[in-house]
Amino acid sequence: MSKKKQKPNRPKARRPRGFEDKSADIIRAENRLIAAAFAVYDQNGFEPLQTPAFEYADALGKFLPDEDRPNTGVFALRDDDEQWMSLRYDLTAPLARFVAENFDALAKPYRRYQAGSVFRNEKPGPGRFREFVQCDADSVGAPGAAADAEMVMLAADVMRAVGLKDGQYQVRVNNRKLLDGILENTGVPNTNEGAIQRLKVLRAIDKLDRLGEAGVEALLGEGREDDSGDYTEGANLGKDAIKAVLGFTIASAGGRVDTIANLEKLVGNSERGMSGCQELVDIDHILSAVGIGDDRAAFDTSIVRGLGYYTGPVFEVELLTDIKDRKGRPVRIGSIGGGGRYDDLVSRFRGQLVPATGFSFGVSRLLSALERLDALENTSNPPVFVTVFDRALLGEYFKMADEMRTAGLRAEVYVGTGNITKQMKYADRRGVQLAVIMGEDELSRNEVTVKDLALGAEMAKAIKSNEEWKSARPAQETVARENLIDYLKQALNK
Amino acid sequence: MSKKKQKPNRPKARRPRGFEDKSADIIRAENRLIAAAFAVYDQNGFEPLQTPAFEYADALGKFLPDEDRPNTGVFALRDDDEQWMSLRYDLTAPLARFVAENFDALAKPYRRYQAGSVFRNEKPGPGRFREFVQCDADSVGAPGAAADAEMVMLAADVMRAVGLKDGQYQVRVNNRKLLDGILENTGVPNTNEGAIQRLKVLRAIDKLDRLGEAGVEALLGEGREDDSGDYTEGANLGKDAIKAVLGFTIASAGGRVDTIANLEKLVGNSERGMSGCQELVDIDHILSAVGIGDDRAAFDTSIVRGLGYYTGPVFEVELLTDIKDRKGRPVRIGSIGGGGRYDDLVSRFRGQLVPATGFSFGVSRLLSALERLDALENTSNPPVFVTVFDRALLGEYFKMADEMRTAGLRAEVYVGTGNITKQMKYADRRGVQLAVIMGEDELSRNEVTVKDLALGAEMAKAIKSNEEWKSARPAQETVARENLIDYLKQALNK
Repeated sequence: MSKKKQKPNRPKARRPRGFEDKSADIIRAENRLIAAAFAVYDQNGFEPLQTPAFEYADALGKFLPDEDRPNTGVFALRDDDEQWMSLRYDLTAPLARFVAENFDALAKPYRRYQAGSVFRNEKPGPGRFREFVQCDADSVGAPGAAADAEMVMLAADVMRAVGLKDGQYQVRVNNRKLLDGILENTGVPNTNEGAIQRLKVLRAIDKLDRLGEAGVEALLGEGREDDSGDYTEGANLGKDAIKAVLGFTIASAGGRVDTIANLEKLVGNSERGMSGCQELVDIDHILSAVGIGDDRAAFDTSIVRGLGYYTGPVFEVELLTDIKDRKGRPVRIGSIGGGGRYDDLVSRFRGQLVPATGFSFGVSRLLSALERLDALENTSNPPVFVTVFDRALLGEYFKMADEMRTAGLRAEVYVGTGNITKQMKYADRRGVQLAVIMGEDELSRNEVTVKDLALGAEMAKAIKSNEEWKSARPAQETVARENLIDYLKQALNK
Repeated sequence: MSKKKQKPNRPKARRPRGFEDKSADIIRAENRLIAAAFAVYDQNGFEPLQTPAFEYADALGKFLPDEDRPNTGVFALRDDDEQWMSLRYDLTAPLARFVAENFDALAKPYRRYQAGSVFRNEKPGPGRFREFVQCDADSVGAPGAAADAEMVMLAADVMRAVGLKDGQYQVRVNNRKLLDGILENTGVPNTNEGAIQRLKVLRAIDKLDRLGEAGVEALLGEGREDDSGDYTEGANLGKDAIKAVLGFTIASAGGRVDTIANLEKLVGNSERGMSGCQELVDIDHILSAVGIGDDRAAFDTSIVRGLGYYTGPVFEVELLTDIKDRKGRPVRIGSIGGGGRYDDLVSRFRGQLVPATGFSFGVSRLLSALERLDALENTSNPPVFVTVFDRALLGEYFKMADEMRTAGLRAEVYVGTGNITKQMKYADRRGVQLAVIMGEDELSRNEVTVKDLALGAEMAKAIKSNEEWKSARPAQETVARENLIDYLKQALNK
């Protein structure tokens, strides 16, 4: 070998782009969110499910192009037996596969909750990761609006459970059938034939916030050229149809009951439209029975909720805020999750119709929203820190920490090799409030020293050696060994 | 298109081979195990960490072959920018990457815990999955035996926390330095030169259980031919060296203190051997101080703990049982996890030595072991089932369930569309104990009917219609509406 090759060729320590390491505070906060949601689902009789990270690419479907390497949007690899496997991009497609595979063994409606990493092979951006955690609940096998009402109720209850106050969130419910019915009345058939036109209408409505009524009107009609000169083809609806659709998007200005009255007029005699109205009536009935008012769950005909596989009621959870930005405009946090009915996803596998409805939220997205709303509890709980003043006394230190833990306290013995100054710096970086110090002298007197690091942080910087430390004793108290646990509990308010 | 193509071409619902869907009971039990372990780590002042599922292949190292497609043992794929990424195969290699990447920002010792899926691209077999959950705790930056003692203590405490009784488990500790020292005394240098020979000795000792002393003796010497005629090359130790190694493997027949005395004789003047002994002295000191006796943590010189990256103390957690097989032999459950010191893993990235020690167990493996030891609590908690006797009363049913949940009970309203017979079948499959039934009549009398499904299961089978049901009323009681919650709580012992 040449001399050049002998230079150590070390790998660079870096995480893959678009992936994140999560810090302790974030993990604790996210786990609390998930636990709060799970508790709600569990109390409602849902059961947990875990499916693998991989699915066969053809089972996942959706994003799969007809290419040799189906990796657009998903992470895919070819298994030893030449079958393409993909990492799941959501938790719904794997649920559909699971239900189809175990159809006869499952009591239906099958109601499950699940949280887990999903993967998107997309260009990473700020706050946009290629692996993130979703938290889902779904009912499979229940065609009626009761199951949809339950999902809306769960969404509202989960928002309360994660610490939001009423008024800080609103579940906004729409129903795909309503627009289908209104379009049907204006001559867009409610069959596959009209599918592309319906999709264009949905896309147009979805841009209401951004483009305003005039922009949407153009997209519902012949089309629209944006400022950059890009032209978007329109849905080619006639004048009356455009009016009907625009009227529909503002039909929900009032409460749930008023909205239903408006909608009943708009859908006219369309069977599908009337069925959509009846579902909203049923949903309102159940929400009202459990005391969920318009403040917590409204009907909102401008909700589109993606373009994918929804077939009936759809909803989004909007976080509301009175935070103002620097220009005094209310800060919009927007939707943190949503769901709806998707009756076709399981039937992909089985042929027969398998109705399903669900609710999903992104855990990180909800967490950031809660942070901005100051709705996160601060639950920092640094351990009591047992310093190693004299290595010969390690056994005593571990015994002390053991007693603290038995008493329910969090406790840590320093297992590094630094001197007392280094140990105090470490404790400081760890956010420790109370440090316990015991040398031979204290041991012989059956005493320990407890130092309040918050109080003593400044003074500590000047101290260099064990001896200096013992004589200076900044912000510390001597406590009888047998009173140590009581003293610590009192100092920590436990 | 031909007529043949019009036949629906549906994807087959099947999960990828070697991957599993986990059922509710398993998930609940595994989550309890993880929560119990996390509580122990947290109380000891460890902090949670989550790293991504992917790492760059060169950062993971270890299994990576110098091939174009480095997929031996790992799941790897090439990112858009041509870099190879691999799914993590354990939680230790990503920890090393994380610590190396954030070295200056971390207070050291950095002590973290983590649980998560790891992936092995191996041939699946019964109970051997290609994705499984590991649960790890590690200290990075602590060179002394105190950190190792802490790991042994944590392992013993986690076993208690997951529900094992003392006597059902034993942590068995060895130290790589001891064998290094003994081999050094017999002329195998404690340098890279002797590395292959040392590895062969470790491999031989690891087969003690299977091959017995004679087989190991052959493997330590010239080599061994097995029954199938396969020949394994030996470590080529001399007669005295073989005797010393075999003597070493049985040096731990007594308690920790006796074992140390034996080992001090065996390692003689080898510096590395003496250092290994001193570490065991330090570990024993701390374990004894916190009251962990030989029954919970023993020294065991036959422990090898894989051949990988360990550099000092190593340990395994052995589950013990008095279960006998059909031939009356005690059933061996074996090791459910272990750990040890690995001082070189972070230095791969940084050059400088970064000492580390850890403990890891496989969650499914521990769970199966607990099942076999009957050490799992049964915490089945089926929901109270609110039947939908009359769809017009759905609101009342949801209101009732809401009251139950407010009272801390688990409750489920039937959201499917089956009649009462179907609903009862569903409740039965769900393991429901108590079902609540209310029709118009009961509502007008302010009463509900509560049915005990366990009692009534047999009778229910004969009942066909809602009307029959109401007249038969098997194993059920009429309860005043305002007493419902109290009645349910009493019936469920809550």
